Amino acid sequence: MADGTPDPSSDQLPTEMKRCPPDCLAALEQIMTGRVNTGTAVRSHHANSLTSVAPQWPDVVVWPETTLEVAALVGIAQQFQVPLIAYGAGTSLEGHVNAPLGGISVDLTHMNKILAVRPDDMDCTVEAGVTLQQLNAELKSTGLFFPVDPGAEYATLGGMAATRASGTTTVRYGSMRDNVISVTAVMPTGDIVRSARRARKSAAGYDLTRLLVGSEGTLGIITDLTLKLYGVPETVLGAIAAFDDVGAACRAAIAGIQSGLNLARVELLDAAQVRCVNARARLGLEEVPTLFLEFHGSSASCLSDFDSFKSMAMDEGGRDLRAAADEAGRRHIWKARHDAFWAVKTSWPGKDVLVTDVAVPLSHLAEAVAQTAQDIEAHGLTAPIVGHIGDGNFHAIVVFDRSNPAELSKVEQFLDRLVARALAHDGTATGEHGIGQGKMRYLTDELGPGVNVMRQIKRAIDPSNILNPGKIF
Amino acid sequence: MADGTPDPSSDQLPTEMKRCPPDCLAALEQIMTGRVNTGTAVRSHHANSLTSVAPQWPDVVVWPETTLEVAALVGIAQQFQVPLIAYGAGTSLEGHVNAPLGGISVDLTHMNKILAVRPDDMDCTVEAGVTLQQLNAELKSTGLFFPVDPGAEYATLGGMAATRASGTTTVRYGSMRDNVISVTAVMPTGDIVRSARRARKSAAGYDLTRLLVGSEGTLGIITDLTLKLYGVPETVLGAIAAFDDVGAACRAAIAGIQSGLNLARVELLDAAQVRCVNARARLGLEEVPTLFLEFHGSSASCLSDFDSFKSMAMDEGGRDLRAAADEAGRRHIWKARHDAFWAVKTSWPGKDVLVTDVAVPLSHLAEAVAQTAQDIEAHGLTAPIVGHIGDGNFHAIVVFDRSNPAELSKVEQFLDRLVARALAHDGTATGEHGIGQGKMRYLTDELGPGVNVMRQIKRAIDPSNILNPGKIF
Repeated sequence: MADGTPDPSSDQLPTEMKRCPPDCLAALEQIMTGRVNTGTAVRSHHANSLTSVAPQWPDVVVWPETTLEVAALVGIAQQFQVPLIAYGAGTSLEGHVNAPLGGISVDLTHMNKILAVRPDDMDCTVEAGVTLQQLNAELKSTGLFFPVDPGAEYATLGGMAATRASGTTTVRYGSMRDNVISVTAVMPTGDIVRSARRARKSAAGYDLTRLLVGSEGTLGIITDLTLKLYGVPETVLGAIAAFDDVGAACRAAIAGIQSGLNLARVELLDAAQVRCVNARARLGLEEVPTLFLEFHGSSASCLSDFDSFKSMAMDEGGRDLRAAADEAGRRHIWKARHDAFWAVKTSWPGKDVLVTDVAVPLSHLAEAVAQTAQDIEAHGLTAPIVGHIGDGNFHAIVVFDRSNPAELSKVEQFLDRLVARALAHDGTATGEHGIGQGKMRYLTDELGPGVNVMRQIKRAIDPSNILNPGKIF
Repeated sequence: MADGTPDPSSDQLPTEMKRCPPDCLAALEQIMTGRVNTGTAVRSHHANSLTSVAPQWPDVVVWPETTLEVAALVGIAQQFQVPLIAYGAGTSLEGHVNAPLGGISVDLTHMNKILAVRPDDMDCTVEAGVTLQQLNAELKSTGLFFPVDPGAEYATLGGMAATRASGTTTVRYGSMRDNVISVTAVMPTGDIVRSARRARKSAAGYDLTRLLVGSEGTLGIITDLTLKLYGVPETVLGAIAAFDDVGAACRAAIAGIQSGLNLARVELLDAAQVRCVNARARLGLEEVPTLFLEFHGSSASCLSDFDSFKSMAMDEGGRDLRAAADEAGRRHIWKARHDAFWAVKTSWPGKDVLVTDVAVPLSHLAEAVAQTAQDIEAHGLTAPIVGHIGDGNFHAIVVFDRSNPAELSKVEQFLDRLVARALAHDGTATGEHGIGQGKMRYLTDELGPGVNVMRQIKRAIDPSNILNPGKIF
C-alpha cells in the first residue's frame, strides 16, 4: 500500500477481528451504563439482510446519545480491535447493517434531536437518528420541506446520508449527494470532523461531505448533518398515464424532462406492478405500463405543464391521463406507489421478496427494462418492475422462496444478468441501494481500477478496518 | 501515517523534488516529439499567480493529446520524481498552476475534442481541454446548453472540474460538483480511472467523481469528463434593481429565492462596483447597491416571476426595477457583469488587481458584505464588491500595487480579516476559487481535523507527491 500500487485482486483489509471480549463489554457498560444490550432479540433485530446473505448478528448493541460518546466507542473499538457497525432504522436493502465479523452495533436512534431549523438559510441541522417523517413534521409550520424520498418514511437521515439515498423526487430535487451541506462524523482516529461549513458551496479542499455521503459507515460514523430545505410548492399536481408498452412510457417521460416541465416525480410501474398495486390499494387502473407523475409549481404552471405532458404522452400512445382530483386523491396515488413492496409481498403471501436496483442512462432505460421483463419471463421468475424513470433507475421486486436453494440460486443468476445488462448500457449496479454485502461482487466490473482508489482511501482512513468491515470491498 | 494519526501540524508530504534532469527531458521528447518546450516565454506563460505568491515557472511544458500519453507522463514523473502540474486555460485565481518545485506543466489544450453529445440523455463527453465557449457553441443546434458560468468563457472544462468552479448560474443549475457525471483521470499509479458510469446517479461505493472534482490536480489528472446538459429555457428575462443599501438588496434576493421564483442569476454589485461598470459599459446606472437578475422559464412564468420579485424588492425599498428590453439589452447587462474585473482594472490603470472570494450562509450575507465594506473603508483600501448572492458567495476586487511591500502586506491583512469574518459566520474561505497556494493558510482554520483526513487521502493516493505539490496543503 505504501508504494501506492495495491493488488486489486486481494482485499488487503484486516478481517481477523476478535469477537467482543468481556473486557470490551465492561468498557462499554462503563461509559454507557444501561444502554448496552447483548440479548438475542435485540442483536437479531440489528442484524438485517434482504440479500442472499443470512442475517449476521453483532455481539452487542449500544445507544450513544452524543457525538462524544460515539468518539469514545471508536476508542474502545480501536483498543479491542472489534468492528463498529452504524445502525439507523435498518431500512437498507443490501446488508449494510449485518455484522459478518461480529462487533458493536451502534444504534443512533437516541440521537434524534432536530438541532436547528433556519428558514432564512433554507437549511437545518439534525442528529443522525432523526427520521425523515420526524423532520418533515417539524418543518410543517415553516413552509419548507426536505424532499429526498426513499419510500421508507421512518428511515433515519444519517442512514440516508451514509447510503447516498435517493428516491421518487430525485429527478427534481436530487439525492442525498446533492442535499447534504455538511456532516459531523467520528473518524477511526477518534477525530470529530465537520466535513464543511454551512455555506451553500465551497471550494476549500477535497469534498469530504461527498466522501462521507455514500461511504456506508466504512470511513466515519455520521452523528449529525446539515441539510438543504425547499419551499413547499404552491401547487402539487399528481397524475397518472397508461401506455401500451414500457418503451412508450419511457419516451413520454424523457420528452417531458427534456422540455423542462416541472416534473418532481416520474415513476414507472410495469403491468405486473400495477396488478399488485390495484390489489392492495384498489386503484382500479388498467393493468398496463403506467406512469405516476407529480408536477410542482404555481397553479398555472402545473396545469400548463400537465397539458403539455398530456400531448407528449398522447404522441406516444398514452391514454387515460388523469390528474388527481384533489389532495386526497394525490396522496392515495403516492401511498400506493410507496407501498409497491408491500403490494408485491401481500400478493404472494409467505414468499420472500428481494428488491434490487440498477440505473442506466435515460435513453437506454426502455431497452433495459424491456430486456429485464423478457429475462424474468424467460426464466419463469416473478418480479414486478417499478422505476424512478427520470433518473434511469429501476427496481425489480423479486418474489421467491429463500429456503429453497435452487430458487435462491436462480435469483442470484438473475441479479448477475441484470447488473451485467446495466453495465453493458453504461449504467451502474446500484442507483440508490448501495453496495453493502449484496453487490460487492459487481463493484470491480463497474469501476475497474477505481476500486483500487477506494481501497487506498479505506486503508488510509481506517487501517484497522474497524468501521463496518465486510461491506463495499 | 500507518497508525492513522498524522500530525496535523506537519505537512508530511515529500517536497524535496528534483528539477527535471536532462534524462527526463529526453524521455519526454521521446514520447511527445515536438510537443515539449523549455523556452522561457512558454514557461513564463504557464506560471501564473494572481495571489501574493510570485509566478513560479515549471521546468518544461508538454502538450499531450491522449489519455494514454498523460499516463506515460505520470510514468516519467514517477521515474524521475518530478512534479506534474495540470494546466488548462490558466484562468484560476489562487496560484493553482504555479510550479513551486518546478516540474512538468501538462498543458491539456490539445485535448479539445467534443467526444459525444447525447440529446436524449441530456449529457455530453468532452476532453479536458474543451472550453466552455467551444462546448456551448457546439450545443447551439441541439437546444441544450451547459450552464456553469465562472465568468471566463475560455476556461477549460477540465480546469473547471479540477477547481470545482461555479459562478453566476449556480443558484439555479449548481456548480461543477453538481454537473459532472463522471471523469476519466490518470492517477499517480498510472491507472486510468473512470470515476463513474454514465447513469445519472449511482450508490456504487465512494463518490470518486466528487473526490476528483475540486482536487486541484493533486490526486489525478482529469483527461475527459461527462457533463449534464440542460434545455435552453423558452424565455430568459434579464432585470436590474437598485437599493439603498446592501442589506436591502440581500433581503429582496432571499425573499425571491425562498418563494421559489425561477431565478437563474442573482448578482449583487456594490456602489463602487456599479461605478466601475458604468464607466466601462456605459450602463448609466444609479451608483448604489444593485441586483442583476435573470429569470429562466416559460414566457408567462418569467413575466409573473418578475412581477412577484418587483413587489418583494419594493418591500425592501428597491427602485428602478427594469427588465431588459430585449435580448441585446440582456446580453449587455451580463457582459458588463462578466467584465467586472476588467471594469475595475481599467478604472485604476497600472494598478494590480486581486480577486478574492468567500461564502457564508445566506442569512449572514448582508452583514458579511456590510462588514467587509466597512473594513475596506476603515483601512483605506480600494475594493469593489460583487457577489453571487444566491449562494451567499461574494468577491472583493482589491486594487493595489504589488511592487509596494507595505501595500501588499495591507492586502494580505485584509484577506486574513475577510476570511476570519467568513469563518465566524460559519462560512468558507473560498466559495469557488479554491485553495491553491493563496488560501492554504486558512484551510485548517476552516476544517480543523478534516484537513488530516484530506492529508491521509493525498498521501494514500499520491505518496510521492508528484501531482501539483505545494497546493492545498
